[in-house]
Amino acid sequence: MVMQERAVRTREALVRAAAAEIDGKGYAGATLSGICKSAEVSMGALTFHFANKSELADAVVERGCEVTRELVGKVAADGGCALRSVGALTLGLARLLEEDVAVRSAALLARERPEAGSDWTAAWLPAVRELLESAGEQGELRAGAMPVAVAALIAHLLAGAEVQRRCGGGANRLEPIWELVLHGVAAGGV
Amino acid sequence: MVMQERAVRTREALVRAAAAEIDGKGYAGATLSGICKSAEVSMGALTFHFANKSELADAVVERGCEVTRELVGKVAADGGCALRSVGALTLGLARLLEEDVAVRSAALLARERPEAGSDWTAAWLPAVRELLESAGEQGELRAGAMPVAVAALIAHLLAGAEVQRRCGGGANRLEPIWELVLHGVAAGGV
Repeated sequence: MVMQERAVRTREALVRAAAAEIDGKGYAGATLSGICKSAEVSMGALTFHFANKSELADAVVERGCEVTRELVGKVAADGGCALRSVGALTLGLARLLEEDVAVRSAALLARERPEAGSDWTAAWLPAVRELLESAGEQGELRAGAMPVAVAALIAHLLAGAEVQRRCGGGANRLEPIWELVLHGVAAGGV
Repeated sequence: MVMQERAVRTREALVRAAAAEIDGKGYAGATLSGICKSAEVSMGALTFHFANKSELADAVVERGCEVTRELVGKVAADGGCALRSVGALTLGLARLLEEDVAVRSAALLARERPEAGSDWTAAWLPAVRELLESAGEQGELRAGAMPVAVAALIAHLLAGAEVQRRCGGGANRLEPIWELVLHGVAAGGV
């Protein structure tokens, strides 16, 4: 029983360390020895839990997706105006990218290991699309704004938020940007 | 004279090969031996032109910035409505990210080597900001749309376009997205 708890804690420490290492160095740059060192776990203990770097990365993606699905569930439970929910979800995802290293690593791994199949985007994009369809049905979208194009816009903004953060930006900047998206940038006559 | 021409061609082949290698594998994953192989150049010839991977990456960034500055100059020369120029520049930059491997590598290196100082964004963001200031002065922007926020939105979209491409998207998708940005997504009453 005590051993089992320790194994859970060790696995947890490894996933956390792997998320930080991948976030900092990318998938190619991350090393198992670096992960062991920062998790304060031996290489033997690591290989007991994960056969290789790829399996460890899968666990990081799964952790990032879990946290993301929790947010999606929370926003859905809040209910209310669909377009407002889309905004809450978009800004909430930007905040997760800012604050949660597993979410950030999962987003990074989606582009660095596109062949791996476990995709962070799949944890939230279907919910955004569904909300936008509802928003369209309820007349909350401008006539020319197709739900699929708005979903693509949001995917671009979130990919941009993750990348901008690596260049020293902050995700909180997405709030004024979302306001622009809602109401447009062009003056009426332009 | 003949030798000099050959040296120019060799340098050119190395920069092109380095751009492709960095685009495909990232800065950490790119190797000098891989670049030599695809450029069909010996390691001796490579080190004659570039002391190390970092110098080669600098040359890739400089190439990407050159191409980008050409586009900026072309859009500025076209003149006309400032907000329309911002759109032309944004979509033109997205097209360069799609089609020009040196531009794409320069964008990638901006986030993978933020400490290097030679930043692709600096090749276009000041021009976008200036055009947006003009658009504001000429009443082309909606009252609530601040030039600095619109510039941040565009930076997010382009970062997103580069990343989305790595996940299998296409930059041409930015056209409907730019339409949404101009006119907003929310219906009048929302």
